[in-house]
Amino acid sequence: MNNDAPRQHFASDNYAGMCPQARHWLLEADATGHQPAYGDDIWTQRVSEGLRHLFQTDCDVYFVFNGTAANSLALASMCQSYHSVICTPQAHIDTDECGGPEFFSNGSKLLTTDPAAPGAALAKLTPDEIERLVTKRSDIHYPKPKVVSITQSTELGTVYSVEEVRAIAAIAKRRQLKVHMDGARFANAVAHLGCHPSEITWRAGVDVLCFGGTKNGIPVGEAVIFFDRTLSEDFAYRVKQAGQLASKMRFISAPWVGMLEGDTWLANARHANEMARRLYHRINSVPGVRVMHEPQANAVFAYLPEPAIKVLQNEKGWKFYDFIAGGGCRLMCAWDTKVESVDAFAADIATVCAALR
Amino acid sequence: MNNDAPRQHFASDNYAGMCPQARHWLLEADATGHQPAYGDDIWTQRVSEGLRHLFQTDCDVYFVFNGTAANSLALASMCQSYHSVICTPQAHIDTDECGGPEFFSNGSKLLTTDPAAPGAALAKLTPDEIERLVTKRSDIHYPKPKVVSITQSTELGTVYSVEEVRAIAAIAKRRQLKVHMDGARFANAVAHLGCHPSEITWRAGVDVLCFGGTKNGIPVGEAVIFFDRTLSEDFAYRVKQAGQLASKMRFISAPWVGMLEGDTWLANARHANEMARRLYHRINSVPGVRVMHEPQANAVFAYLPEPAIKVLQNEKGWKFYDFIAGGGCRLMCAWDTKVESVDAFAADIATVCAALR
Amino acid sequence: MNNDAPRQHFASDNYAGMCPQARHWLLEADATGHQPAYGDDIWTQRVSEGLRHLFQTDCDVYFVFNGTAANSLALASMCQSYHSVICTPQAHIDTDECGGPEFFSNGSKLLTTDPAAPGAALAKLTPDEIERLVTKRSDIHYPKPKVVSITQSTELGTVYSVEEVRAIAAIAKRRQLKVHMDGARFANAVAHLGCHPSEITWRAGVDVLCFGGTKNGIPVGEAVIFFDRTLSEDFAYRVKQAGQLASKMRFISAPWVGMLEGDTWLANARHANEMARRLYHRINSVPGVRVMHEPQANAVFAYLPEPAIKVLQNEKGWKFYDFIAGGGCRLMCAWDTKVESVDAFAADIATVCAALR
Amino acid sequence: MNNDAPRQHFASDNYAGMCPQARHWLLEADATGHQPAYGDDIWTQRVSEGLRHLFQTDCDVYFVFNGTAANSLALASMCQSYHSVICTPQAHIDTDECGGPEFFSNGSKLLTTDPAAPGAALAKLTPDEIERLVTKRSDIHYPKPKVVSITQSTELGTVYSVEEVRAIAAIAKRRQLKVHMDGARFANAVAHLGCHPSEITWRAGVDVLCFGGTKNGIPVGEAVIFFDRTLSEDFAYRVKQAGQLASKMRFISAPWVGMLEGDTWLANARHANEMARRLYHRINSVPGVRVMHEPQANAVFAYLPEPAIKVLQNEKGWKFYDFIAGGGCRLMCAWDTKVESVDAFAADIATVCAALR
Repeated sequence: MNNDAPRQHFASDNYAGMCPQARHWLLEADATGHQPAYGDDIWTQRVSEGLRHLFQTDCDVYFVFNGTAANSLALASMCQSYHSVICTPQAHIDTDECGGPEFFSNGSKLLTTDPAAPGAALAKLTPDEIERLVTKRSDIHYPKPKVVSITQSTELGTVYSVEEVRAIAAIAKRRQLKVHMDGARFANAVAHLGCHPSEITWRAGVDVLCFGGTKNGIPVGEAVIFFDRTLSEDFAYRVKQAGQLASKMRFISAPWVGMLEGDTWLANARHANEMARRLYHRINSVPGVRVMHEPQANAVFAYLPEPAIKVLQNEKGWKFYDFIAGGGCRLMCAWDTKVESVDAFAADIATVCAALR
Repeated sequence: MNNDAPRQHFASDNYAGMCPQARHWLLEADATGHQPAYGDDIWTQRVSEGLRHLFQTDCDVYFVFNGTAANSLALASMCQSYHSVICTPQAHIDTDECGGPEFFSNGSKLLTTDPAAPGAALAKLTPDEIERLVTKRSDIHYPKPKVVSITQSTELGTVYSVEEVRAIAAIAKRRQLKVHMDGARFANAVAHLGCHPSEITWRAGVDVLCFGGTKNGIPVGEAVIFFDRTLSEDFAYRVKQAGQLASKMRFISAPWVGMLEGDTWLANARHANEMARRLYHRINSVPGVRVMHEPQANAVFAYLPEPAIKVLQNEKGWKFYDFIAGGGCRLMCAWDTKVESVDAFAADIATVCAALR
Repeated sequence: MNNDAPRQHFASDNYAGMCPQARHWLLEADATGHQPAYGDDIWTQRVSEGLRHLFQTDCDVYFVFNGTAANSLALASMCQSYHSVICTPQAHIDTDECGGPEFFSNGSKLLTTDPAAPGAALAKLTPDEIERLVTKRSDIHYPKPKVVSITQSTELGTVYSVEEVRAIAAIAKRRQLKVHMDGARFANAVAHLGCHPSEITWRAGVDVLCFGGTKNGIPVGEAVIFFDRTLSEDFAYRVKQAGQLASKMRFISAPWVGMLEGDTWLANARHANEMARRLYHRINSVPGVRVMHEPQANAVFAYLPEPAIKVLQNEKGWKFYDFIAGGGCRLMCAWDTKVESVDAFAADIATVCAALR
Repeated sequence: MNNDAPRQHFASDNYAGMCPQARHWLLEADATGHQPAYGDDIWTQRVSEGLRHLFQTDCDVYFVFNGTAANSLALASMCQSYHSVICTPQAHIDTDECGGPEFFSNGSKLLTTDPAAPGAALAKLTPDEIERLVTKRSDIHYPKPKVVSITQSTELGTVYSVEEVRAIAAIAKRRQLKVHMDGARFANAVAHLGCHPSEITWRAGVDVLCFGGTKNGIPVGEAVIFFDRTLSEDFAYRVKQAGQLASKMRFISAPWVGMLEGDTWLANARHANEMARRLYHRINSVPGVRVMHEPQANAVFAYLPEPAIKVLQNEKGWKFYDFIAGGGCRLMCAWDTKVESVDAFAADIATVCAALR
């Protein structure tokens, strides 16, 4: 690894900066002096059109500042306070938003599926678990299920297949549930599946997608995409009231021009996925390391010996999370993760684990 | 006016882009590769220290995405749902946040002062009106006043003097009310008064300041500064839950390094104020124009003949608001407003008004 | 006045107890031992049917504990947090619910009409004021008007005519606004107008009526009646979550059997109205007393000399409010107010005023 | 069983009516004509004093309409929206309030303990589980634990001993958590333990008790009792805003006079507990019946053969719940459950089970 370059980390893909294409358009938008505020600018229009083009459908597009807001506002647009949202026990909306969905919806409850159910170990919802939860209670003492929320790619770096999304949406429709997709790492899922983005969204039955930008090279901001446009009635008001309307909107939207141009979003995701696969192959057979499952998106989840974690973090200076997913370490690659960084990290893991045996 | 340069406008100071110093540090922060997320980066720490240094006190500093959130979260930290906030009828929090304060506080009511009270024409709160509202009702059928909120500089481009702020804070303290300052254009107030920023904030009795960055040259983001640190207990959780915690925080905080360095924030505000004064002097004696009051901050409020407004907007291509402040036009200058733009705009106003007579 | 009987007051109609018919059915419902909870009892069914019969339409009926809840939940069922409700400045929902509507709706704003508009002195909304408020702003920085709320009879004891309600509902429909009627004293309005209850509700265009019981002889509870049944979708969940579902519902609903039987509700209201008229005639020509307007419902609003108020309250022991409606005294009659009480009170007013001259 | 008397049921203690003592004072309060509203009446004062006397401490007392409101408002007074409440997976606040706590607190999350933890089978929290949950996460992405909520007696009819409550409160205090007791069946717990009510509340470290009245013979209403009076600051406003302030408060409070007089509350609870014990002894050895645990309060939880449940409900006409507590049947006794009813029910269970073998 080049000693001059700043150290890279595997803690989160939000440790990375802007990708060059996002930066280019950020500066381009800045270079034009005075521009109308609150989204009445040319970049916001252009990117909204671009996303409609990308998804091949006439969807409604809104930009908000981060994933907490994107998911929470999307859910609030589908739920009243006395409704509920079905999700996995690993769902980011349940475990890492500090009650954001409950706050924005004024009390909607998240109903988490059985941690022992099939699919649960891969952080996936299944039609059976949805059916079980939606039919479990029908009295007014329990909040009425209204939405199914799935994370694509999941919190454990796995990816729902097109068929899996379709099956989930089918049971949802049958039970009058809306389908929300937390796509903080949507690009990584598409990159893995090699499908068209429409195939795992509206063509499969997804009503609202929160399309993550930040983790894929955008400085600040996520897109909320309503495929079911009846759900976005007055959503602009909701965004404004909730403190999510940027006055200088161009700085949120323009970077997306760079993401869409030449499918940068997909290239970035492919690269991150590849780096995760490389890391996986480098550490999978290291004695002492137990990878939880083969990575599909941009993260490897692995059990490392406790002392190895300490040495890697404290002596070797690597940053990564060791508290997510039940004891395993989350080793996350970003759009800019270098081969050299992966190799250096993998080498340190091997060395440290060997020294401990 | 140079025909090559993009047209400038007088609609809002949020039509302007980033100032060079903000942009410089945004790019600087980007150039360093992987950095810890959620504020554990060097720029966020540096700017927080810088703001404590600027205000000469050990205040708590938080960054959020926009003014709606800054004001609403600050008020929510001081109010329970059954409390109320005293403000003017022109207060931005009452008229232009789409119910944001009520949403974030889960129902706190804004009590607006009498539009006919002294000071009201200049969008200023007075101790007498505060006293009147706080003593008007004391039964539990009316939400208990808990906060006084003042906007500095005001929504009408006026500025509270140091003495005025002190007098407001004094009555507030006597009535056990907290003092919130909506400082979307705080810099313009300091520039006008020529005082130290501490003099119109904590030294005068202000508990929380929402220090605006966006309107003064920052791309995205405002600072919430708690001078009364007992009010910021667990505020980080509040920010997170409310969708206001940036993962790539450095892109929100680093531009502030450029604002603080060499007092760019003050220079930007001084320039904008000067441009407003220049505009005022150019149009004040134009027949048909009636300026509402001499500008103190960066906006001129003036009545223009209805047909003149139409010609200026539709034929001459100038953008400015004509619905704010009871029929007057708001002509707002920014950190980057050029002398040539002011002069060209003033000339067009004069020409159009003359043609209509 | 019989010295043995407890003193009656003119402070509020909620100072009165249960009427005999309500009490009879309360005890009747109690006498039957075990009964299903949460409304699955025969009285709740019977009263709901009775109200549908009374209004001659297939409306949805819910019982809640008090008027704050009835109005707030009804409004919340029509508004999202970023919507707004048009009402008068005297509206009880704005002045006396401690922010209840804002709390239950999570932030909906109340837009009050101009206190100087025609009709305002009688606490009435007018189509012109509705039109003005609904067309005033259409940008997303201001909460979108969604509901018109009128109080029938009003907070000043006046009554909207059938034509007035129709005209309000007509402009509301044209502007896609729902119509809510705060009917805490609905019975008094019907008694005054001599119309069928349907004529000033659904036949005139009212979507939801909060039909007050407590002020008319019920011990605890109000009925929320949805004429537009699309608005009551999942309302039972809303009621439950908001802590308004009585487990022993029969004690809330059964007293209404007594109210409906033989039109007790109307007889009670007629009596209260008559007592107010009697009081009005007794004090109208008393020197020093200035009645604000001829009473239509069950309250007289009058200006009394300040010293007379003190003597009447402190020395003569009469309770009445002197802070409602801008300085006037509110003299409220109840279903059980006796002729002797009215005459004794009027006599004291006359005596005290005379002594002061 | 006397054929003339109405059939009694074992579905819930809220199927029962008022006890004679509650009814007596309800009527007494009604008989006095006009009385001040909103709690300024003599019964409310008397009962508040009575509760302070009963608990032997200067606590703050409020009356609300039902248990959803009592628990939700009590929790909201201790939590901000970004805080969390630790409770068992069986906690009524989590499973049967339709998201009430989340609604009233605007988003506070309930953290449920491990269903497989020791104590969990008896619906009891343990210090170890509290310690585990409170130390599990300390980052701002997870709502900060602020309250421990225990139900006494529990949702499974078990009772925390004095020592158990003390141990829970001790760990809570050490972790800066407040202690809330859902006492919907508090009386039954005291009756079982034979202790003084103060021993399992404030003397053990409980901060707020929701003292249930409805399930113990009151028609409508629960008492919220703040032993830590700093927590009840402005609670009267909270109650008002949340639609829980009765205008004719005497009808909520006066029945409590009857409950306190001669310790009716305790006698009622003792009787209900005894009936549950009687039922337990009658069915415990019936082949096919498996009682989950010996009852301590007023409910027996037992597994009955599925066909037996159907016959007992559909053919024999008994009402009881079969969906609570993981498949078991909840057989609940009330203050008025008769020996004859218990014996008739037990006999039917025996007969039906025998017929099925």
